[in-house]
Amino acid sequence: MSAPESTLVLDVPAWVDVEAPPGHRYREDDEKMALVIRLSSENVSRGAGGPFAAAVFEIGSGRLVAAGVNSVVRLQNCVLHAETMAIMLAQRRVGSFSLRAPALPAHELVTSCEPCAMCLGATLYSGVRRLVIAATRDDATAVGFDEGPVFPQSYTYVADRGIEIVWNVKRAEATRVLRAYREGGGVIYNADPTPPAIG
Amino acid sequence: MSAPESTLVLDVPAWVDVEAPPGHRYREDDEKMALVIRLSSENVSRGAGGPFAAAVFEIGSGRLVAAGVNSVVRLQNCVLHAETMAIMLAQRRVGSFSLRAPALPAHELVTSCEPCAMCLGATLYSGVRRLVIAATRDDATAVGFDEGPVFPQSYTYVADRGIEIVWNVKRAEATRVLRAYREGGGVIYNADPTPPAIG
Repeated sequence: MSAPESTLVLDVPAWVDVEAPPGHRYREDDEKMALVIRLSSENVSRGAGGPFAAAVFEIGSGRLVAAGVNSVVRLQNCVLHAETMAIMLAQRRVGSFSLRAPALPAHELVTSCEPCAMCLGATLYSGVRRLVIAATRDDATAVGFDEGPVFPQSYTYVADRGIEIVWNVKRAEATRVLRAYREGGGVIYNADPTPPAIG
Repeated sequence: MSAPESTLVLDVPAWVDVEAPPGHRYREDDEKMALVIRLSSENVSRGAGGPFAAAVFEIGSGRLVAAGVNSVVRLQNCVLHAETMAIMLAQRRVGSFSLRAPALPAHELVTSCEPCAMCLGATLYSGVRRLVIAATRDDATAVGFDEGPVFPQSYTYVADRGIEIVWNVKRAEATRVLRAYREGGGVIYNADPTPPAIG
């Protein structure tokens, strides 16, 4: 009965799983974030989307569950930030709407930039126990992105639900990718998009 | 190169487009909300998901662009609230990541319950100009749902970006659906899910 436009087929580009093979183990926040920032940079250099990437890992083993890259413009869908992509793919792979489901190990979300309002909400519902952040809201705002209604008490709320938050892991490297995207004329895909910068 | 688990295939159940035919015109907030609440109720009675529905309409013509129902448990994906489903399908149908794209008429999101933190962010990015709400955060919290970090200043933020917010359209009817879901033992699919009510 469904028309074809009633089905959404969403994916990350094939190179994501090549660069970031699910099941591979990564050690420490620095190594995980280096991977995520490399994906954000590849997303820009390949013209695949915005300068953001994120990945879900098992905290104990360091095993990569799923990586996501920003896909808003590629798939013409404002929900497809890097974090939502990584969370949706991770939940698909573990077969649960919560990464805190009883049989599962603890999970964390590592993101190249502080989550926007939508993605902070998705982080809360995802069931991750830990959120690791590189660039900040100010860094994203500086290149033109609207990060939405996130306030200091938003973080209190999330922390109260058992999510540890780690800031400033490789912030400078992640911010360089944001700036390169803007300087390269990347679309700033807010609701009222900013025209590409002229070269 | 992608493994099958690298593709997400997301849809609303086929009966949604039968009950809410895209292109049909609805008049006034009351008629639009009656449709949305009927979908939320059907989602529960058919065992398809949580007690929430939402739809995107063209403001001027009243034409329905896309309807969504909560699909978190059905598709095991915490991002798939009614609002994100409706927004993603609407953007698919108009072919743009913003419902404010230059060639498009103005759009609105009509939702059976106040958006959670994730969906309020998605509303901001969607490009809708108007948000119409039935049940409130308190009504959803009363049956056990975690609505996330939304504060009074969140609404100031969203209003400042040109989104009109309309409250309390058929709130009592929408709240009855929330209560019926809880009383029927529906899963409260927070990150730490509440076990179904007994009896």
